[in-house]
Amino acid sequence: MRNCSAADARVIVRRSPGRRSGDNTTRASVLAAARRQFSELGYDRTTLRSVAAEAGVDQKLVGYFHGSKHALFVAATALPFDPAEGIASVLAGDPEGRGERLATLIVSLLENPEAGDRLIGLVRAAAAEPEAGRMVRELLTQDVWKPAAASLPSGNPELTVSLVAAQLLGLVMARYVVGVEPLASLPPEGVIELLAPILEDLLSGASSPRESR
Amino acid sequence: MRNCSAADARVIVRRSPGRRSGDNTTRASVLAAARRQFSELGYDRTTLRSVAAEAGVDQKLVGYFHGSKHALFVAATALPFDPAEGIASVLAGDPEGRGERLATLIVSLLENPEAGDRLIGLVRAAAAEPEAGRMVRELLTQDVWKPAAASLPSGNPELTVSLVAAQLLGLVMARYVVGVEPLASLPPEGVIELLAPILEDLLSGASSPRESR
Repeated sequence: MRNCSAADARVIVRRSPGRRSGDNTTRASVLAAARRQFSELGYDRTTLRSVAAEAGVDQKLVGYFHGSKHALFVAATALPFDPAEGIASVLAGDPEGRGERLATLIVSLLENPEAGDRLIGLVRAAAAEPEAGRMVRELLTQDVWKPAAASLPSGNPELTVSLVAAQLLGLVMARYVVGVEPLASLPPEGVIELLAPILEDLLSGASSPRESR
Repeated sequence: MRNCSAADARVIVRRSPGRRSGDNTTRASVLAAARRQFSELGYDRTTLRSVAAEAGVDQKLVGYFHGSKHALFVAATALPFDPAEGIASVLAGDPEGRGERLATLIVSLLENPEAGDRLIGLVRAAAAEPEAGRMVRELLTQDVWKPAAASLPSGNPELTVSLVAAQLLGLVMARYVVGVEPLASLPPEGVIELLAPILEDLLSGASSPRESR
């Protein structure tokens, strides 16, 4: 479980009002507060009001920037990179190390404070909110995996993709949301070592439904 | 911002008042409604009011039976069996088939309408509600696995347990909550076949952190 930002919410630095030139900074702190709250509190408990309070701005301003909680959620959880690109470069090259490269990519993203908060916030929201569930489904299948599925050797790349997605969702829930020990306290390298062989088997199709059964 | 019970409150089939002999039936329908809503709507969107509406009883009666939403949640998601017993019998016997036996147990529980709703409701709530997260953590570690961990051959049974928990959480999220395809539409036997070898490797300690790295 990430205890990185237990204290973050406490520091509310109020900005002097009317500094129009600070718009971008204000936007950034609203998004940072939203990202942290969606990740730590989940979708339902995060409100325009609680985000405004943490960012030290008027709630109306958050409404003005983003319109609705859902729009704020979409903006806050937008990934700061193109996931398809990362996946494609992981799957290219020596098939031997693919599982480990993919595990390293996934764990690095989750351990990165900004990308991690976005991904964990998305997964938590998916459990609470059908619309967020749809977003996670599309992110995992369309945006992230479909472009990369072509390079998978298994007979059923879509199935492989959904199984890798299950591994990602399970890791997020067990380590970062529920905090099952000792997995939650393992150093990132330990998690990569555990995840790599599982992903390796999935990517090579070793875990496809077997014929003889 | 909770927009719970937008639709929930619509179906109100009021029972004729004063039927004291129906107490057990009423309790059962309150719990069934709660179980369904915690599983379908998640913890935050389920309210004493929405459960009362679906069960066709007065909200006060639900409060009288259960006191609070949390108490209702605990009662509704209590498993109708002792999970430790099932796990112990799965792990006993021929080590060869353990992965498949455990996969069969997990998938059968999730596919069973009543037990499945309870487990899925628990996992969804864990993503929204810290107290439910604690319940899932304890269920997975203390109640379910600690009694069985002794029969695991791996060097670190607690770690094995948390990795199996991650598989369970990933399966629940991917197949039942987010609905990642084609995993979500696979017949139960197909899921068992996919899950079995992963669990087999975890139980035999094949996925423990490696020395040479």
